Amino acid sequence: MTKNKATNITWQKSTLSKSEREQLLKQKGVVIWFTGLSASGKSTLAFAVEEELYNRGHLCYVLDGDNIRHGLNKNLGFSPEDREENIRRIGEVSKLFADAGLLTMTAFISPYRKDRDLARRLLKDEEFIEVYTTVPLEIAEQRDPKGLYKKARAGEIKEFTGISAPYEEPLNPELTIDTSKLDLEQSRDRIIQYLKKKGILKKAN
Amino acid sequence: MTKNKATNITWQKSTLSKSEREQLLKQKGVVIWFTGLSASGKSTLAFAVEEELYNRGHLCYVLDGDNIRHGLNKNLGFSPEDREENIRRIGEVSKLFADAGLLTMTAFISPYRKDRDLARRLLKDEEFIEVYTTVPLEIAEQRDPKGLYKKARAGEIKEFTGISAPYEEPLNPELTIDTSKLDLEQSRDRIIQYLKKKGILKKAN
Repeated sequence: MTKNKATNITWQKSTLSKSEREQLLKQKGVVIWFTGLSASGKSTLAFAVEEELYNRGHLCYVLDGDNIRHGLNKNLGFSPEDREENIRRIGEVSKLFADAGLLTMTAFISPYRKDRDLARRLLKDEEFIEVYTTVPLEIAEQRDPKGLYKKARAGEIKEFTGISAPYEEPLNPELTIDTSKLDLEQSRDRIIQYLKKKGILKKAN
Repeated sequence: MTKNKATNITWQKSTLSKSEREQLLKQKGVVIWFTGLSASGKSTLAFAVEEELYNRGHLCYVLDGDNIRHGLNKNLGFSPEDREENIRRIGEVSKLFADAGLLTMTAFISPYRKDRDLARRLLKDEEFIEVYTTVPLEIAEQRDPKGLYKKARAGEIKEFTGISAPYEEPLNPELTIDTSKLDLEQSRDRIIQYLKKKGILKKAN
């Protein structure tokens, strides 16, 4: 509480809580943290979840390379320290979005368990949902929509996750989705069912 | 569009637009950027606007020292470069929030015109609303709710805006509010009237 004692005007600071914003939105503010190899479907799946939830009246937001790497994190490279700082900032921003009441999705390889666990610890247990999009490396490499695996194999990209840099599998993700076995709708619906089961979606649909 | 050609499963990426989220929320996503001396009322005013708009069914979020300095920007100090990076990150995060459809408010001294203008340029003209909370320095110093001016005068805080570091007044703010002349409700209502006039609030109230 900030009380101005110096003039006759009283300026009382009053702040709304996360739960008040959640009531307005009829949903809980959570972070759905996608992790997995390049081309494992993280971003495509996140946007499919957003679209389906939007049609049910829910507000989501997806943080991914497109809106983070060219903006907030454009001053970071790919050194170990910069990768760590990259994920740290994404964790902090996703926490703010969850606090605002949004169903927040992050779609980054985030290969290191330590970095993901740091993000997890910013939030309450029930607010952090780790989704591991798993796929055999050879399938990810066949998909290769941006030609990154090809460049990595040719040595044009150094320290590429899965080829020349490690990917540390989640030990206890809330959900594991094999995107070489499920199609997009099935994958999406697994996430939506999980959110419903956990009471995160409060609308009557 | 990411199309997976390597299996029989088609994974088409489809992303919602800002305007679709704005339709859901019945408001426009904008950044209301408060700037002014310490104790000029930025944060108190931002939260008062949030509360009033919440009562009208609108979703806001306030970025301020409490949720930014201890989180996203906890690895920044008060050197000129760190101050610049502090405001740069806040600008980028507020842009993400506006893109998500929220009425986003930032409450930081942000003393340098250059830094505020950088934040402004991240957004479209009508999406950035600079609100200058002005107050005579002697009044801010009398208020001094956190005792910071006292410490600055005693030399315990270096480079304190208004005492030992400059504050560059906005040249063309969308709104200027003298918080030594208007009370909190009057100040709040000036902002809400502005938002209504600009068509940013789409609800029927």
